[in-house]
Amino acid sequence: MSDKNVRLILAYDGSAYHGWQRQRSGVTIQGVIEEKLQMIVGDPVKVIAAGRTDAGVHAVKQVCNFITRSSIGPEAVKRALNSLLPDDILVRDAKYAPLEFHARYNAGSKTYEYRILNREDPDVFLRNYLWHIRQPLNTKEMAKCLSLIVGTHDFSAFRSSGSGNINPVRSLSSAKLQGPQDGLLRFILEADGFLRHMVRNIVGTVRDAGLGKMGSDRFKEILESRDRQSAGFKAPPQGLFLMEVRY
Amino acid sequence: MSDKNVRLILAYDGSAYHGWQRQRSGVTIQGVIEEKLQMIVGDPVKVIAAGRTDAGVHAVKQVCNFITRSSIGPEAVKRALNSLLPDDILVRDAKYAPLEFHARYNAGSKTYEYRILNREDPDVFLRNYLWHIRQPLNTKEMAKCLSLIVGTHDFSAFRSSGSGNINPVRSLSSAKLQGPQDGLLRFILEADGFLRHMVRNIVGTVRDAGLGKMGSDRFKEILESRDRQSAGFKAPPQGLFLMEVRY
Repeated sequence: MSDKNVRLILAYDGSAYHGWQRQRSGVTIQGVIEEKLQMIVGDPVKVIAAGRTDAGVHAVKQVCNFITRSSIGPEAVKRALNSLLPDDILVRDAKYAPLEFHARYNAGSKTYEYRILNREDPDVFLRNYLWHIRQPLNTKEMAKCLSLIVGTHDFSAFRSSGSGNINPVRSLSSAKLQGPQDGLLRFILEADGFLRHMVRNIVGTVRDAGLGKMGSDRFKEILESRDRQSAGFKAPPQGLFLMEVRY
Repeated sequence: MSDKNVRLILAYDGSAYHGWQRQRSGVTIQGVIEEKLQMIVGDPVKVIAAGRTDAGVHAVKQVCNFITRSSIGPEAVKRALNSLLPDDILVRDAKYAPLEFHARYNAGSKTYEYRILNREDPDVFLRNYLWHIRQPLNTKEMAKCLSLIVGTHDFSAFRSSGSGNINPVRSLSSAKLQGPQDGLLRFILEADGFLRHMVRNIVGTVRDAGLGKMGSDRFKEILESRDRQSAGFKAPPQGLFLMEVRY
């Protein structure tokens, strides 16, 4: 009956959830998974995720872990969870991890992707998975903005307004714009960590450059201002995907 | 104030609807569109669709028409409808048509596509747009079955059980299987018309051949039996898309 640490890899469609993190009210992904896990292992379980995604945000490969004394092996946990979970959450993998493994604190880097559909017509099938922008976007200017955030910066200008006192310095190892392909633009950002709403605030501000409201020089000023008030509109959640976590 | 005939091309995600056709209870695509159209043109409107898709079935290009005395032009109708419709229904195009044009009776051929995801893991993002089958499928045998239905046949074996006395003879000009590509199999069927549930009954029976439960020889016997009882399971609705209507 010794403690074991189980590492899960999840995919989920965040459309129906109030984000990852358990809340007093509202259905959350953490809440649903902990509830089903308790049914399987018999005891209350606390699941730690690498990225605490917001309401409406999706995950292709979220990494989590939980400590349990249950002797049910990871493969059996995976099968049982998948049979109990709703079909918008999937356990892709389950394995034992060293006891000291912590899905959030040990994460070396995370990759997020943000998807914009840039064309006249929206897509009725992908409406929960992208941000539809009708007006033509200058993708060259947008890519220029992205190149400016690569490296180590104080990202205060792109943090969520009420996100407290944590260190706003982050290191982006990569920030790319792929596409447009059939109107689809994909922003792919990899960093050692992200501040709350950071990707969505960056994408919303880069959009302003795409629309010609400002140039990449102004984008640079905003980054350097460290002032949330100067940045643009926060992009809506449904275009955002947690793609990968590296350890 | 003379009558005008307006032809619409629609895309919709059928997940939330009780199919195309207006019913006493349950929200239908026809019902929603007629309600919004009445708000725009001021009078009750009857919308005729080329294909009366079932609950959960989607359309990439559904063709419809309606007669109105309103002088509001098609482009304005399109814009007004798109601003009023929920985001799972989209008017892709609106044009005047000759008064005698009837979206259903005049349809020369229709193309339906059915999507199967054949791999271990389901796809949380596409779960409403395909049929997930875990067991390996013999796609060669499945393609053989499809080749047997091309041409003119009595499709009684694949019609819906309660579909009455209409002529069960249909001419399929094409029945192809594309893929698998990343696990995705696409059945593409074009015919002068389809009986109720015909595509789903065919796909469900072809699946049995894919699973090795029977061979394409048995599939041929089923087709020739004209007996609904001998065919397989009806494939679920969410994999089915009305792709195109030709006139």
